[in-house]
Amino acid sequence: MAVEDGSVGIVETKCFTYAEPPDEVELECGRKLGPITLAYEAYGELNEAKNNVVLIVHALSGDAHVAGYNSPDDEKPGWWDMMIGPGKGFDTNKYFLLCSNIIGGCKGSTGPSSIHPQTGRPYGLSFPVVTVKDMVNAQKALCDHLGLDKLLCVVGGSMGGMQVLQWAVSYPDMVRLVIPIATTGRLSAQAIAFNEVGRQAIMSDPDWMAGDYYGKTTPHRGLAIARMIGHITYMSDMSMHQKFGRMLQDKAEYGYDFVTDFQVESYLRYRGDSFVKRFDANSYLYITKAMDYFDLGQAYGSLREAFAGVKTKFLVISFSSDWLFPPYQSKEIISALRQNDIDAIYMEIQSDYGHDAFLLESVQLTQVISNFLRHGQDRTR
Amino acid sequence: MAVEDGSVGIVETKCFTYAEPPDEVELECGRKLGPITLAYEAYGELNEAKNNVVLIVHALSGDAHVAGYNSPDDEKPGWWDMMIGPGKGFDTNKYFLLCSNIIGGCKGSTGPSSIHPQTGRPYGLSFPVVTVKDMVNAQKALCDHLGLDKLLCVVGGSMGGMQVLQWAVSYPDMVRLVIPIATTGRLSAQAIAFNEVGRQAIMSDPDWMAGDYYGKTTPHRGLAIARMIGHITYMSDMSMHQKFGRMLQDKAEYGYDFVTDFQVESYLRYRGDSFVKRFDANSYLYITKAMDYFDLGQAYGSLREAFAGVKTKFLVISFSSDWLFPPYQSKEIISALRQNDIDAIYMEIQSDYGHDAFLLESVQLTQVISNFLRHGQDRTR
Repeated sequence: MAVEDGSVGIVETKCFTYAEPPDEVELECGRKLGPITLAYEAYGELNEAKNNVVLIVHALSGDAHVAGYNSPDDEKPGWWDMMIGPGKGFDTNKYFLLCSNIIGGCKGSTGPSSIHPQTGRPYGLSFPVVTVKDMVNAQKALCDHLGLDKLLCVVGGSMGGMQVLQWAVSYPDMVRLVIPIATTGRLSAQAIAFNEVGRQAIMSDPDWMAGDYYGKTTPHRGLAIARMIGHITYMSDMSMHQKFGRMLQDKAEYGYDFVTDFQVESYLRYRGDSFVKRFDANSYLYITKAMDYFDLGQAYGSLREAFAGVKTKFLVISFSSDWLFPPYQSKEIISALRQNDIDAIYMEIQSDYGHDAFLLESVQLTQVISNFLRHGQDRTR
Repeated sequence: MAVEDGSVGIVETKCFTYAEPPDEVELECGRKLGPITLAYEAYGELNEAKNNVVLIVHALSGDAHVAGYNSPDDEKPGWWDMMIGPGKGFDTNKYFLLCSNIIGGCKGSTGPSSIHPQTGRPYGLSFPVVTVKDMVNAQKALCDHLGLDKLLCVVGGSMGGMQVLQWAVSYPDMVRLVIPIATTGRLSAQAIAFNEVGRQAIMSDPDWMAGDYYGKTTPHRGLAIARMIGHITYMSDMSMHQKFGRMLQDKAEYGYDFVTDFQVESYLRYRGDSFVKRFDANSYLYITKAMDYFDLGQAYGSLREAFAGVKTKFLVISFSSDWLFPPYQSKEIISALRQNDIDAIYMEIQSDYGHDAFLLESVQLTQVISNFLRHGQDRTR
C-alpha cells in the first residue's frame, strides 16, 4: 500500500444485521430470508442536513470495499478508488459515500456461502434466488438503519446500473439523482447466453456437487472458465488487439502444443485463477441469475411505464465500444425516460476499453459526474 | 430425407490414403505424419478440359459431406446443401465439386481419434499439431491423386476462408478464382481468447484425461461448454434478440432456480449436447489451435507481401453483423490484395445473422457467387 493524495486512506468494512426471525424479509421469489447481514463501507462526512449521501452499488464481482485500503498490507485499493476520495469525482470532502455488498454475494453479506441458521451449515443451493430488486431493498434497509431518508445520488455500473434504475423506480421520492453506467433496462439474450455458459461451466465441474462443496474442494475449474468468458465480454475486440494482439507469451515461436502460446491466453488463465481465490462459485450462479431476471419494465408493461411518476434526475452513461451493454441499450433507457418528461442527460463516452471502461475511464467519468453532482446538488426539488 | 429439386441426391463419402511410411509428410510443426487418410465427397462431372473444378473447404465443425444425403435415412442434407446442386450457386450441372475433411478432424480424415499405426491405439495428444497450411497441403495431395492440376475455384467460410487464402498463396498458379467468406488473414486476440476458453473447458473436464479418453467416458461436459461458447460467437446480438429475446422455455414465470428459464439457455444446452454426439473433443483442440496459429502474413513480413505474385482473382465476402470475423478484417485482406494490383471484389452482405450468415444467406450468396463464377470461367488467363 502507498496512500497517495486523493485516497480515503485506511477504511473499515462494517456489518449490519436485520431481518432476524420471525421478522424475515420476503423476497421477490416468494421465499423468506433472515437474518440478513450486509457488509458496508462509508467514506466522507454526513452533513447536518443529511443531504449529501451518495450510494454506490456494485457489479457482479464487486464488494463493499470501493475505495481506500482495508489494511496497510493491501496491494490494491478498492474497486472504484479512481472515482472516490478528496478532490475526486465523488469528492469525500463534499459527499458521504456508502456502499454495501449485495445480498447473494460472498464478501461479507448474506449469500449462499453464509451459514443457514437452521442447519448450522452453509446454505449452498438452499439459498433463495435473489433479484436486483431484493438487493435494492436490502440497501434501503441499511439506509433506514443509518437514518438516511434521502439519497443525493445512487450510482453504479453494469449490474450496479441495474440497481440504480431499480432504486429510481422502487424509491422515487428518496433519490434526487441517479447515474446508471454501462447498463441496460433488461438483460439481452446474448448476455443471458454468456451468463448461462458460465453457470454451466460451474455446474458441470464435478467438484461443484450440487452446490454443497463448502469445506471440500471448490469447483475452481468451472469458476475459472466462467470468469474467463466474462473477461472476454468485458473487453473490446480493439482493446484486446491493443493490449495483446498476437504476441506470444515467453516464447519466440509457436509451441505446437496445448501449453500457453499467446499472451491473451496467459492473461485469461491468470484472471480465471485469481478469481477463484476470492469468489464463491455459488454466488456467481446467484448473481448472474439476478442479472438474467432483470427486466425493469416487465412488471409494468414497458420500461416507459416503469418510469411513470419518477422525479429523479438521470445521467445515463454508456461507452462506445461496450458490446455487452451496448450504447443502444442506454438509449432505450433515455427514450423511456424522455417519454415521461424526466430530466435525463445521455452521455456516450468514446472509449476502446469495452464494458470495462466504467472501471478505467477516470478522466471522462470524473468530469461528467462531478458536473452532474454539482448542478444536481445546487437545485432544490 | 426428402430429395427435392436442386439436390445432388444420394452421395458417397470416399477415402484416399497417402503418405504411407517411409513417405510420411513433414508438417509445418516439423513433425512427420503418415499414413494420412482423407475422407472426401465429389458432385457433378469433371469436364474433359478438367477446368471446372470447385474445391470447397470447411470450417471448424464441418466435414466432407457438403451436399445431398449419405443415406435415405438422413434427416438433414450436407452442411452447405443450400449452395450446391443442379441450378444452385455452385451448379452441379456445370461444375465438378470436391470437398475433403481436414486433417486433424474426426469425420473420416486422419486426426487425434485415428489409430496411431505404431501403437495400434488412438493418437490422442500424440497427434502432431496441424496448421491451416498442412490442411491445404493435404487437399493438394488429394487433387494430385485425382489428376486435378487446375482448380477453377476454391471457396470456404470461417476457417474454410483461411484455407482459401492459404491456397491462393501456397499454389497461386493452380487456382483461378478464390472466394474467402467471413474470414480473416490472421485470427484476432478476441477470437483466440474464445478458442482458448473452449479448450480450457475441455481440458478442465476430468474425463479428458490428457486426451486419452477413447473407449472411456468422453469429456462431453467440457466439449458441450466449448460448443455453447462457439454458438454465441456465431450469432449476433440482434439475431439472438430476434430468435429468443427474453422468452421463457416451457414456463410462464421465472423458475427462481437453476433449471432452464430462458429459451436461449435451452437452445445453447441443446446445441452443446448434440455436438458432443458427433464431434471429438481432441479434434476441437487441434482445429481451434490451427485457427489460432493462422497468420498468413507472418512468414512473409505482412499480408501484402504474402500476396505478392498471386494472379488468382478474389471475391471477398463479409457479413455486416459478423463480430467474430468482422468486415474490417475482410477489408484488410482487400487492401493487401489491391496493394498488389490483384483483381479483387469486396462484398459486405447486409445480414443480422452474424458469423452464421455464411450458412444461411443463400439468396445473396448464390447471386454474387454464381455471377463471379460465370465471369471468372468465361475469361482465359
